[in-house]
Amino acid sequence: MSITVVGSVAYDSIETPAGRRERCLGGAATYFSLAASFFTDIRVIAVVGEDFGPEQETVFAARNIDTRGIEHAPGKSFFWEGSYLENLNEAQTRNTELNVFAAFEPKIPDAYRDSDFLFLANIDPVLQRRVRESMPGVKLVAGDTMNYWIKDHRPALLEVLKGLDVLLINDTEARMLAGTHNLVQAARAVIALGPRTLVVKHGEYGATLFHESNPKGKGPELRTFRAPALPLKEVIDPTGAGDSFAGGFFGYLASQPEHPPAAWRHAMYYGSVMGAFACERFGTERLQQLSRAEIDARFNILRELTHLD
Amino acid sequence: MSITVVGSVAYDSIETPAGRRERCLGGAATYFSLAASFFTDIRVIAVVGEDFGPEQETVFAARNIDTRGIEHAPGKSFFWEGSYLENLNEAQTRNTELNVFAAFEPKIPDAYRDSDFLFLANIDPVLQRRVRESMPGVKLVAGDTMNYWIKDHRPALLEVLKGLDVLLINDTEARMLAGTHNLVQAARAVIALGPRTLVVKHGEYGATLFHESNPKGKGPELRTFRAPALPLKEVIDPTGAGDSFAGGFFGYLASQPEHPPAAWRHAMYYGSVMGAFACERFGTERLQQLSRAEIDARFNILRELTHLD
Repeated sequence: MSITVVGSVAYDSIETPAGRRERCLGGAATYFSLAASFFTDIRVIAVVGEDFGPEQETVFAARNIDTRGIEHAPGKSFFWEGSYLENLNEAQTRNTELNVFAAFEPKIPDAYRDSDFLFLANIDPVLQRRVRESMPGVKLVAGDTMNYWIKDHRPALLEVLKGLDVLLINDTEARMLAGTHNLVQAARAVIALGPRTLVVKHGEYGATLFHESNPKGKGPELRTFRAPALPLKEVIDPTGAGDSFAGGFFGYLASQPEHPPAAWRHAMYYGSVMGAFACERFGTERLQQLSRAEIDARFNILRELTHLD
Repeated sequence: MSITVVGSVAYDSIETPAGRRERCLGGAATYFSLAASFFTDIRVIAVVGEDFGPEQETVFAARNIDTRGIEHAPGKSFFWEGSYLENLNEAQTRNTELNVFAAFEPKIPDAYRDSDFLFLANIDPVLQRRVRESMPGVKLVAGDTMNYWIKDHRPALLEVLKGLDVLLINDTEARMLAGTHNLVQAARAVIALGPRTLVVKHGEYGATLFHESNPKGKGPELRTFRAPALPLKEVIDPTGAGDSFAGGFFGYLASQPEHPPAAWRHAMYYGSVMGAFACERFGTERLQQLSRAEIDARFNILRELTHLD
């Protein structure tokens, strides 16, 4: 079943200990779409400027990603410049130019309206909410956010959370959103805000899924599942790893007719697989060259990394 | 098969967000012994002062731990005071009094000499090496160390590493010892110093085992395995969690007649189980009250936390 994703399609200039790249194709919706496209049909809603041409279009087309929802506006695309020279786990932002993104008004093509899955990548929660409300018929809605929205746009973000089934954020964001350091307590607090399922990404240590279930007559119970991250000999560029995790995770879920606990567990592993691939080259290079066979081989390596027998 | 452990038996005054305790029984050898005693026979080498009496003796006796190697010296036992008020993952040391530990000369009782397993808890590497050399017949030697020895006593520590089969340290220590941030590269560098197996403890994110194997005709290969940590609703006191991990890990290995890869994987999980229990009460309280049935129940919870099927 198809996923509609709304988020940024952008250019990134990136510096890491492995080198520097100027104006790579990037943006959360780009990484998410490429990663998820190995599992199911993807439809993108975004806005780009006049600097987005056939070469970039081809990246999406090569993965059969529907780009009819990518609006072309006068001006330049969203641009981000960041460095990981000090810390590979956290980018230092050097420059952000919103450009055409500043006036982004997501428009949902009619052809997207039958999507059963919706992913709200990290953008202004006011826009996330608007897209969510425009697609009331979706079966499963997942979303991402970041420290900036949690700190300075909390009321708008809280409205978004009410309409989410799954929230994917990192440790720092989960603790900030919940106002508590303990991760289990933070998970309970976040789940109380709306999403029944919370995925907390721990970077090189993997990710944990928290799911509130209601076993008969027992009241709410917190089910947890942890997927490892693959220990990498070298991280070339961590940009987009979290969005790629989300793509693998949600793409796998959307490819499954039903979602028993085992489907969520497999989704966590596929998220981890796609996050690891994203780090192996600059920008989206590795995701563009990937095959499903490589993905499944990597899945098996992750299984061996954690399974007792 | 029995384990001989050399290390500190001490008193700790501890402050955490959950409260404060004065002069709990502590020390690396204490936590290690209690945790490992659920799996095999344990023999301790340490030194205590006149403040160590029948009450403390009983803690060891209740777990059938052989204390004939605990020397009683005039003066006071090693004392440590620390706080976790700022960060539950890292203690702030407020006071350290070496007391009788300052002149510790480990003496190995004859009755300990047939131990097949030796654990060198975190003490002066000069002493670790002396004990290692006094027990040349052991089958498997594991050890721990800390940032202080890595920074300021590196030559002595490097001598110890040459005689170790397994080193258990945390992320920060592994990176400091190897001089590189990437964990896989750090593991290769540490393994090149002596131990064929390195266990890196990630606190609340679990632990990773790196093992250098030599598949036929293929040259050295790094095998990795990751055990999760149990997400805890509340960490009462993390003191001794790393030593308890080591106790569960090495205790399980010593209980097994052979050590195929599956034994190492199970050992990692038992380490994680014992580390989690240690955090649930102040000092050694939880380890003292534990049963093997609780340990195995917790093992199964960890399995469910990470296994796909």
